[in-house]
Amino acid sequence: MEKATFVELSEQKISNQNGKMKRGVAVIDFILRLIAIVATLASAIAMGTTDETLPFFTQFVRFRAKYDDLPALRLFVVASAIASGYLILSLPFSILHIIRSSAGMTRVILIILDTVMLASLTAGSSAAASIVYLAHKGNTKANWFAFCQQYNSFCERISGSMIGSFIAIPLFIILIILSALVLSRR
Amino acid sequence: MEKATFVELSEQKISNQNGKMKRGVAVIDFILRLIAIVATLASAIAMGTTDETLPFFTQFVRFRAKYDDLPALRLFVVASAIASGYLILSLPFSILHIIRSSAGMTRVILIILDTVMLASLTAGSSAAASIVYLAHKGNTKANWFAFCQQYNSFCERISGSMIGSFIAIPLFIILIILSALVLSRR
Repeated sequence: MEKATFVELSEQKISNQNGKMKRGVAVIDFILRLIAIVATLASAIAMGTTDETLPFFTQFVRFRAKYDDLPALRLFVVASAIASGYLILSLPFSILHIIRSSAGMTRVILIILDTVMLASLTAGSSAAASIVYLAHKGNTKANWFAFCQQYNSFCERISGSMIGSFIAIPLFIILIILSALVLSRR
Repeated sequence: MEKATFVELSEQKISNQNGKMKRGVAVIDFILRLIAIVATLASAIAMGTTDETLPFFTQFVRFRAKYDDLPALRLFVVASAIASGYLILSLPFSILHIIRSSAGMTRVILIILDTVMLASLTAGSSAAASIVYLAHKGNTKANWFAFCQQYNSFCERISGSMIGSFIAIPLFIILIILSALVLSRR
């Protein structure tokens, strides 16, 4: 009888430790999501408001560059906005995991959605990155001209806008890894 | 005493069912990895051997298009080759999960590596896709010319090469989801 109680107690201790570990991970999860929301939202807004009109113009043409002249940049804005929207909606689940560390099904759902969002954000960001690279460097073989020499501040803006999403991508990877680790400890 | 035996038996039954489920998932995992290996390898090889010389030339210039005239396509070949190499190396783990359905740590390792590979393959593929789109459609605002009108078979080849990797991306997502489901059942 005494032995049984001892086993029960030590089992309880382990499950308590496990619960603490899970709570800690849930708090980190919540903080990472907050950072990722700020990063993706900043990216989407910075890119979505990019618009440069050059200070010289002819009678017929005004030289103007807007982000949605390049379809890849429009995709980037959409992907970043969707990612940040999803992250905001996922916050209640993250809080639920802090309160109730035993919740299992919601973790699986979050892993699935996180993975899909990781893929969509990565796709949007890399498509935009390859176009931004082209705007900077051009391609002599394909006769694509690097227009960044003219539209200087436009190019700086679109390059800078990408930083946020490229911060959010590794955060998503860490979120998925943390959830997997917690699931493996059940 | 009898009650205890009954509880033990029914627990064993559940764990048996769980074992069968895990084995089934492990077999699906193995098959999906095989398909993804073929898809990424075919993509890498098809893109890596793309080379078109136009049938007309002047005294000084031969018109020739190679995949690595476009840096994004080189990135695509590297990302696809790395993904297929990783998938081949992950096969023994997948087989291990078929044989020993209780293995937990290797599943977590596979989820982590799968997630990283998903991100890298998606990045390479979308970067290349946005360049291929540009080769087809061009961009009048940026004065980027669609060279697909000249290099017809080159363009068909680079577009076709992308299919394999875009098949492998959802397969990676499914692999991660399956591993997460198995981990949640432990």
